[in-house]
This record gives sequence, C-alpha cells and structure tokens, in this order.
Amino acid sequence: MIIVMRPDHEEGDLQRVVRRLEDLGLRTHISKGEHRTIVGAIGDERILSELPMQSFAGVEAVHPILKPYKLVSREFQPENTVIQVNGFPIGGQQIQVIAGPCAVESREVLEEIAEELVPEGVHFLRGGAFKPRTSPYSFQGWGEKGLKFLASVREKLGLMVVTELMDPRDTVLVCKYADIVQIGTRNMSNFRLLTEVGNIDKPVLLKRGLCATIKEFLMSAEYIMAQGNEKVILCERGIRTFETETRNTLDISAVPLLKQLTHLPVIVDPSHAVGRADLVAAVSRAAVAAGADGLLVEVHVRPEEAMSDGPQSLRPQAFRAMLEECRRVAEAVGRFI
Amino acid sequence: MIIVMRPDHEEGDLQRVVRRLEDLGLRTHISKGEHRTIVGAIGDERILSELPMQSFAGVEAVHPILKPYKLVSREFQPENTVIQVNGFPIGGQQIQVIAGPCAVESREVLEEIAEELVPEGVHFLRGGAFKPRTSPYSFQGWGEKGLKFLASVREKLGLMVVTELMDPRDTVLVCKYADIVQIGTRNMSNFRLLTEVGNIDKPVLLKRGLCATIKEFLMSAEYIMAQGNEKVILCERGIRTFETETRNTLDISAVPLLKQLTHLPVIVDPSHAVGRADLVAAVSRAAVAAGADGLLVEVHVRPEEAMSDGPQSLRPQAFRAMLEECRRVAEAVGRFI
Amino acid sequence: MIIVMRPDHEEGDLQRVVRRLEDLGLRTHISKGEHRTIVGAIGDERILSELPMQSFAGVEAVHPILKPYKLVSREFQPENTVIQVNGFPIGGQQIQVIAGPCAVESREVLEEIAEELVPEGVHFLRGGAFKPRTSPYSFQGWGEKGLKFLASVREKLGLMVVTELMDPRDTVLVCKYADIVQIGTRNMSNFRLLTEVGNIDKPVLLKRGLCATIKEFLMSAEYIMAQGNEKVILCERGIRTFETETRNTLDISAVPLLKQLTHLPVIVDPSHAVGRADLVAAVSRAAVAAGADGLLVEVHVRPEEAMSDGPQSLRPQAFRAMLEECRRVAEAVGRFI
Amino acid sequence: MIIVMRPDHEEGDLQRVVRRLEDLGLRTHISKGEHRTIVGAIGDERILSELPMQSFAGVEAVHPILKPYKLVSREFQPENTVIQVNGFPIGGQQIQVIAGPCAVESREVLEEIAEELVPEGVHFLRGGAFKPRTSPYSFQGWGEKGLKFLASVREKLGLMVVTELMDPRDTVLVCKYADIVQIGTRNMSNFRLLTEVGNIDKPVLLKRGLCATIKEFLMSAEYIMAQGNEKVILCERGIRTFETETRNTLDISAVPLLKQLTHLPVIVDPSHAVGRADLVAAVSRAAVAAGADGLLVEVHVRPEEAMSDGPQSLRPQAFRAMLEECRRVAEAVGRFI
Repeated sequence: MIIVMRPDHEEGDLQRVVRRLEDLGLRTHISKGEHRTIVGAIGDERILSELPMQSFAGVEAVHPILKPYKLVSREFQPENTVIQVNGFPIGGQQIQVIAGPCAVESREVLEEIAEELVPEGVHFLRGGAFKPRTSPYSFQGWGEKGLKFLASVREKLGLMVVTELMDPRDTVLVCKYADIVQIGTRNMSNFRLLTEVGNIDKPVLLKRGLCATIKEFLMSAEYIMAQGNEKVILCERGIRTFETETRNTLDISAVPLLKQLTHLPVIVDPSHAVGRADLVAAVSRAAVAAGADGLLVEVHVRPEEAMSDGPQSLRPQAFRAMLEECRRVAEAVGRFI
Repeated sequence: MIIVMRPDHEEGDLQRVVRRLEDLGLRTHISKGEHRTIVGAIGDERILSELPMQSFAGVEAVHPILKPYKLVSREFQPENTVIQVNGFPIGGQQIQVIAGPCAVESREVLEEIAEELVPEGVHFLRGGAFKPRTSPYSFQGWGEKGLKFLASVREKLGLMVVTELMDPRDTVLVCKYADIVQIGTRNMSNFRLLTEVGNIDKPVLLKRGLCATIKEFLMSAEYIMAQGNEKVILCERGIRTFETETRNTLDISAVPLLKQLTHLPVIVDPSHAVGRADLVAAVSRAAVAAGADGLLVEVHVRPEEAMSDGPQSLRPQAFRAMLEECRRVAEAVGRFI
Repeated sequence: MIIVMRPDHEEGDLQRVVRRLEDLGLRTHISKGEHRTIVGAIGDERILSELPMQSFAGVEAVHPILKPYKLVSREFQPENTVIQVNGFPIGGQQIQVIAGPCAVESREVLEEIAEELVPEGVHFLRGGAFKPRTSPYSFQGWGEKGLKFLASVREKLGLMVVTELMDPRDTVLVCKYADIVQIGTRNMSNFRLLTEVGNIDKPVLLKRGLCATIKEFLMSAEYIMAQGNEKVILCERGIRTFETETRNTLDISAVPLLKQLTHLPVIVDPSHAVGRADLVAAVSRAAVAAGADGLLVEVHVRPEEAMSDGPQSLRPQAFRAMLEECRRVAEAVGRFI
Repeated sequence: MIIVMRPDHEEGDLQRVVRRLEDLGLRTHISKGEHRTIVGAIGDERILSELPMQSFAGVEAVHPILKPYKLVSREFQPENTVIQVNGFPIGGQQIQVIAGPCAVESREVLEEIAEELVPEGVHFLRGGAFKPRTSPYSFQGWGEKGLKFLASVREKLGLMVVTELMDPRDTVLVCKYADIVQIGTRNMSNFRLLTEVGNIDKPVLLKRGLCATIKEFLMSAEYIMAQGNEKVILCERGIRTFETETRNTLDISAVPLLKQLTHLPVIVDPSHAVGRADLVAAVSRAAVAAGADGLLVEVHVRPEEAMSDGPQSLRPQAFRAMLEECRRVAEAVGRFI
C-alpha cells in the first residue's frame, strides 16, 4: 500500500502514519519527492483493509498495490478449476449449455421444454422455483413445488438441475433438489447468503451484480471460497448502462479478463444481458468466441405464455439455430459444445 | 398500457393481442395511424405485469401508463406519513438527525460518541452490529453483542436505536433491540428480506440501492407496505456514477422527486454519499435545503481508529459545526432541527 | 405520439392539447380509461420534436411512438449499404480491417508499421494527425505534416488512409489526404462538425460517444445523412461503465442491434474498448462472431515508444495471431477477412 | 508516479523502466516488498503523461501521484478567482443568477422574458443563438440574428449576455455580442474549441460534460487557462445516470469538491440537471446551500411555446418564488443574491 501525504502535512502526521503501520507488523519506506512525500507499506497489506489510513491527519490519498482477493486469483492457483457435475465438466474444453425457462411454471411445460433440450445435447436444465421479482404483485415462483417439478424432470430425462437460492432459510431445501445452486444478480452482495453457500457441498453459480465491478464480483466469489466451497462458477449476465434498447449490456471483455484474473469457470447469460430474443444468438456467438466456458440461456416453448421474462426466451427452433451457430464458433476457437 | 404493433404485423397478430387483453378483463382501443397501429389496454394494467406482451408476434413496443407502485404513492395517500418513534416524529416539520458510528465497536466508544450527540439534541443513534463488508476478511460486526451495546446506551442516554438487519434469520433478534430497522443499500432488492420486515411492527429505514432508479426504490418500499408495514422511511444515500473523487454521488433531486411521488418520509445519508468527511457538511446543507426530512450521519470520536468507514466519519466538533449550519438552512426553508 | 394526461387535469387542459396537435395537422384520438385519459397524435410525429408537449398544463407524460431517425433506418432502406473505398467494400461479405498506430509519429515509424500490415491483407491504414487529448500538455498530433506522412505511405504501399477530423476549419485539409474521414468519440455530438462532413464526398467513420445511447448514435449519423452524405460507417468503440480494469466496455450487443435498426455498415474498435493489448484479440473475435463488418485496431511496432495509447496497441506478432483467430471465426459465421 | 512491477517480471524489465525514467530526468526509488517491487518516479510527473509506462514489459500497474491539472488548481492559486463582468462579480460573496430562455426565439419574446428578470435583480441574460440539438430536424437557433436580439435587449435593459459558442468559426461573431461565452456540455471535450476560447478576452462559462468526471472537467478548464484566458466559470449541470424521471442527475457534491480543488467560480444549472420545472426550485436551493457561486436558470414566459427545453423552463412567477427561497438560503450560508 502506498500512502501519499498532503503537501502541507506536518512532521507529526508522517510519524503517526509510520508508527501505525509498524505497529501492525509492516515495514515502511519513506520517499520524499519534490511535490509529495510517499510512504510505502511493505508486507501483507490485507491487514490494512481494516485500517482507515485516509482518516489520518495529513494523508492525501491511499493506493492499494495488491488485489484484495486471494483464493479466487490465478496468482494463487494458476491452472483452471474444472467443476464436475455428475460427470459433466464445467470449465474444461467443452462449453456447457444450461437452458430452460426463467421460472418453473408447471411440470408439463417444464417437461415439454426439457424434451426440446435433450436432443440438442444439453445436460443442464435451468428454472427458478424462487423468483426475485421487482414487483410484490408479480408471480414469485412455486417454491418447493417448483423444485419438485425440476427433480422429476431430472429423474425422467437425466438433466442436471440449476436453480436459484434467494434466502438462507431455504438452503437445505434448495440443496435437496439442485445440482448447481444459483445466486442471482440481486444477491451478489448478499454476504450472508454467500457465506451460507460457502458452506454447502454443491457448485455455486454466482451471477454478477447489476452494477458490480469485476473486483467486487471476484470479492463475492472470494466470500464463498473463504468458507471452503471451491466450486464457484462465475456468470457474466450484463451490467446496467444508459442503453434502453437492451435490458442490460453484456460486458464481453469480462470473459477474457476474468479468465486472466481467476482460475474459476466463466459462463455467460445472453438472455438477461440483452432481454430480447432477437439478439440472443449474436451475443451467444460472441460469448463463445471470447472464451466463455458455458452459456445460460432462457428457452420456452411458448414465450407469450411465460410467467416471467418471456420477451427474452428463445423458442426451441431459434435455440437450435443458435446452438448450431455457436458450435461452429466453438470449433473455430478450438473448443466444442 | 399502450401496445405498438410493428409496421409489418399481420392481422392475426393484432387479433391475438386484443383477445389476450380482453381475456384478462381489459377493454381495448385500436388506433390505426399512418405509420403504426396502436392498441390501448384500458383497466388496471397491473394485471399486465405478468403478461409478456413483447413476446407476442407482431408487437414492436409496450408502454406502461400507470406507475407500478400503489401503496407508497401520493395518488393513493395525499398527505405525508409521519412516523412516531417513541414520541419523536419522522416526516413532520422537524428534521431528525440520526448519528453515530458506522459499526458498533465497543460499549465504551459507542457511549463516548453518544455522549457527544445528546447535547446537540440528537434523538437517534445509528450503529451497525451486522456489517455488510465487501471483503470476507474485514470486520463483520459484533452481532448480538453489538446490539446489546446499543441497547445499553439507549437505556443510559435515551437515544433511539437505528441498526441494520442483513439476514431474515436475525429478524427477531434485531427487532428486540432496534427502534428502527435499517435495510442497507445492498439489500434494497433482497425481496425476501423486504417481505420479512413488511411483517414486523417497527419502522423500517430503507436505503436506496447503489444503482437503483427511483421507481425500483419505490417498488422495494411497496414490497414492505404490501405486507402491512406502513412505517417505511426512504433514505437517499448516493448512487454509483463515474466520479471517483467521491464514494458515490448524492442524487439531490431524488429528495423533491420522492416527496412528490410518495407520502413516505425521505431522509438523506450524506456520509455514504460522498465518502469523505470534508464534504459532508455541504451536502447535508443541500439535503436540508432540498426538503429532506432527516439526516443519517456518521460520527466518530476517533475516525482513524474506526473499524469501518473512518474516512467519512465526522469528528464531534465538525458534526456540531455542520449541525449549526443545517439549523440555519432548515429555518430558511421553514423547518427546524 | 401518445400523451398521457394527469389524473387531475382539467377539461380545458385536454382541449388545449388537442387543439395544438390539430393545428399542426395531426389527427387526434382520445381514449378515456379508468385511471388516465390518453391522447394519441396520428401523423408524422417528427413535427412534434419541436413541441414541448410536457409543458402543457395537465400533461403527465409523453411517449413517442416513431423512432426519431429516418434516413439511417432500415425501415427506410431495407438492404445493407455497402461503401466502396477505392474498390474495397465496407459492409459486404468481407470483414475489413483498419489498422495502424493511434497517432502518426514519424514517416519512418508509420511506414514500418504499414509494412507489417500489407502482408496480412490489410487495406486500410489508421493514424491520427490531429489528436484529441484530455491534457493540453500532451502531444496533439503533427497536423498537416502527419497527413502527408499518411499520404506518402498510401502512395508507397497502397493502403487507404483513415484519419480523424476534429475541427471544421480543417475539413478541406483532411479531405485532401484521407480516404475515410473519422469523427471521434468526443465529437459524436459536435453537430456542426457532423453537418460539415455531411457535405463532403468521402466516407465518414463515426465513432459512438462515450456515454451515447444507440438512439443518439443513430441521430448523429442522421445529421450526416440529412446533408446528403450517405457513406456513413458506424463504429462501436466501447462505452463508459463503472469498470476500471478496462478503459471502456465494449457494447457487443450494439453490433446486432445496429445491424437490425440501420442499413449502415457497423465496425468495432476493440483497442479503445478495452484499452489493453492483452484483451484485444478476445473482443475482436467476439466482434466478428456478433456480426461486425470491420475492425479498427491499434497496431504499433514498439508500443512502449508510442506517443499515444501505447498500452492498447498490438505488436505485429500479436496482431497476426489475432487476425488468424478472427479469420477462423469469420468463416464460422459465413464471412471472410 | 508509482510503477508496480508484475510478480513475474524479469530483472531486465525493471532496469528498462528505471533507465527510461532517468533518461527523462526523473529520479527513481525502488522498493522491493514481499509481494511486489515498486518503482517511484520523483520529479514533475507531468512529463510522464506522454510515456506509456503500462506498455513496458513486466509492468503491472501505474499510479499517478500528482493531479494532471495545474493552473486551475487551488494548490497553484489558493485564493478564489472573482471574475468581473462589467462590474458584476462572479465568484465573490454575491450569488449571481443568469436567467432566460433556452433558445432565443424572437426579439419580442426575449424582451418580454428579460423584463420579468430585471425587477428581480438579475444581471445576466442567457439565451442560445446557436443550439446543439440531437435531431437535425429540430430548430438549430437563429445564429447572428439571435445574437442581435440579445444585444438589443442588453442595450435596452442593461442585462449582460451569456450565449453559447458551438463552432470555432463563429468565435469572432459570438464574441462581438456576448459578455460571457458559453461552452456547452457536448463540447466540454471539443479541445479545439477550448483552445479557441483560451485565446479570447471574454469570460468562458464551461459546462461539465454529460458523463465527465471532475478531473476531466478540470482538464478542460486547464485547456482554456493554458492558452492564457484565466476567466473560466465552471458550471455543474447534471450528469447522466440511470434515473429516467429526471433528465440528468445534479451532482451536488461537485460544488464543494470543485471549490476545494480549484480557485475558479462554480455555478449550477438546475434546469438541465432535472429537466422539469417542478423540481428546479428545490435543487436551486440545494445548490445555494452547497456553496454555488451562481445559478443558470431557464425562464420563459410561455414554456408551452418554447422552441427548446420548454418542460424545464420556469414561468416568471415560479422563478420569483424560487429566487425568494434561494435568497433566504443564501443568507443562511452567509451570502446574498
């Protein structure tokens, strides 16, 4: 950590800063320039995350040098983490596709959708039993009933279940039915929920927050790993920007950036990113080209009857076409779907 | 709700849209213009929040006409809600000041801070026992021990306690000690937590999310009110912008805008908005001038030792000066502190 | 255009709105719902862009129905515009690559760079002679001298010249040397400059503004076309977001969205989007996969000596590798480079 | 400047960095920590704005220590700049109000508006003769005719004229009529125009860009001052955020922050910030409370007939009420209007 002193700081200010750092076991290094005096703190600066150096008299600015995350970082683990879900790897050479409706609506519709997915080689079924909705008057999901529908489709068709956990009180319940537990965008900074899933023995699919930076996203993953759960899948799903033609804006460079900063698998949710079915195929191809390890796509047999997010759901035919295009792009970048 | 058909829609598309609306009990109104055909849906369009009209074939755009919130709206209740907390009104002529440290650190420090507040006429003490921290390695708050410190200071000095609830599993515990339960920025869209505090019998101080729009903020308040808890206090605390000199950007126009749209009290947290003590007084004066019903300010006797948010905490002397300035501004706008 | 009246509007308010619309030659259509009265204005609502309907007493909201742009829109011209630059088409099946240094530095370095491009099949050389720099103390470009360097390299190596125009006073000068005139990000809303290049007989490469919406971007293109210049190339180059690890955030969905809304060619500048060389290849592949008609890439033989934007410039070897990857992706989506 | 080396840098990388810095006349200071090696560059780092240190092999990050602006900074000039415009000071104890229509429409309407301003003690008349409009089909201003209307009203009523310059080719023309030359939001980064007004002998009112940071805003002011024109007035006018209920979001903390960082006067444009007349009074009071040196307000006798920005224009009666409220707030903060 670098501490920049104000040009008008007093000698005592500098001494107090140095003393505090040394009290914490750090070595210090003072460099007096023409315009500013700078104090370098040498040692594990994560100790300093607790210390409000900016509140010390005479301090102008503080620059951290180390990244605040550790377990998720590629410096800590150079090789890719590959998560095995019942024999299906996430983070390896194969790009996994997770598809299904936004919300679980009925066993029949869910099964109808799933039956469209199986012939396409999809191994993961998504569907929300608990739905975070901006309106208290909107459909909030079927809860355990929805989880049971998912489990019954898994049993029948062999698809792994990916479903969202919204409340730490439902952890045991959701884990009973899910193969991968999803933490949604709105809960990326729900630190108690992150701690909770840090203690389960299931992979966690963590979605990036609406206006979260990459650093904040990785810190949320760090919360989970710090509890001992190493099976974290990162999901870029679009961030909020000023654009109104699309629901969000897919941050495509987040894919190679995350692959560089962390060893964890990185997947992309094109459906929430754009919010409209007609753009999903193009951004899915882009995600694959940029190096994504998977896609999380909303598919519905009758989007106009969907109880949530119909406008962004692909019909089976469009899903098949998209998948075909993505396969060719995957091959072009040396991978397969 | 206004549904705009694409220029190339087919007659059957239009019929399907109309039929679906009428099936839901809405009347429709078709207007064929030179460039577009438009369908107006007449009736309570909140029914339509469930309906993915954009997924219908031939639909180009959908424009809602009514606001999606109801209970919080001034249309629903024209007169101001004034919330009485043990005889101290929030939302009336008096501007209430809620002050204290970011996190409860020890009984001694808390009491030391509180003793600085009492002579200034402050009636509300803030302090977090549960702290949402971006790093899993940072101090997470003392939990119940911290709540007990708050309660003991209340007993001794008569200050009402405002403290944060982060997890629905702590609701009973926090309610046992808090006079006002705070829902933090990161939980503004934690709908399960909102539902939870919608069922308690304590005022809820709801902070605006980091990148939430006013509509989303009001929808979160609607979640609480929809459960029956009418004592909601809205808190503007700065939104994320590109500016890096300040922690966030106080949305000052949110104050008069919220006062226009809703009957609920609106307070301002200048400390989190700017994130640096030297700007707190100026934005506090601005908040009072713009019509805020209260201020939520971080005060610490020794910010350089604070376990959280030291850089934005006012020392008692600066707090007194700020309060004095705000008092004069309050008077200028016909109110008092 | 749809005008929503306030619930408390007076009869006279409604009449004044209707009268004003009819005075302008529009037909009106009044629909009285349970909660709101709505006035539809039928006819070419672009007349209304002048009219502050929101200022009329009793008006709550105004919803435009038609897009505000016309000439750039695909409704106006369904087939793709393909721009021929000395026989090299932009907007056709071939994806064109425009490469070169950020700023023209010297004839020698420019030529050295260009010689790396020619064997790769690149036909367009970029390089700024006039540089918009945030600091008045930074290198501002060589002006005409730089243009001459570009022209001499064109003569020697046959590369078409793409260079920026910043000031309407330099139009004649820049047109003398450029094959494509670039309007930079910071000038996307410099309407006088747009009008100026609307009157020249050269293709214009228009970069999206830092925080411009797609609609604003298209309106700027409309400014150029409204003057008669139909050769406009749109360039998505990243928008400003909260992310600090990258310089900007490439809006990848802008590519298919623009291709849908407009007939103009759409290219992508991956270099400015990410601002760091190590991410350029991945986002270039993504751009090609998403349907971009071209790439605008910064290449420098010695980035550490570049006078501008060194950190985002590719070295020739990295450029070749990137191009090879993009070629395979192009093929996967049915195009070629 | 602090240069952080990557953990895997080679010895030669470090040597090349050091040599380059020393070649530029800077002293260096190497500090080898447990996790990172850091190079401090001592001397005037503004030299380094040219140098792409991030492109050097082995470099992980670069942290500037000094602010990139100089002439505008309070470090450079501690006392406030007070600009005299024909005897009316801007930046002193008095808060100046600049009022008038968005666009100059006709001599009659302009005069009618101005006559409402004079009795209120307003000394500055605003009005655009050249209008930056997002649509090429919207009214673009009357040009010189509009300037003449402004001048004739000045002659008759003694109000100083504030009007916008959009194009360097109009500089002489606009300066002939204007007392203060305005550079609009969309031109904050039009560096050629900034350079142009850096060479005139008139005060320049510089508006903050739509998504500009404070640092970028000050760099634009630095552009003007670097040419020799020291009479720069900064105008905070709202930045773009996700909020759609208001046109922009007034960054109220920019006022005290700018007053701290620079010696230049800081005024606020509440009209463009909120974009709706009903919120202008509240944010104007806030601006005064926060320490603004002036207000730039849109006033129109008949907003529903305004040719630009009607919805945000105050009618004379509302303007008078707003002014009265602001006067009381000004007094509360020790100033006057």
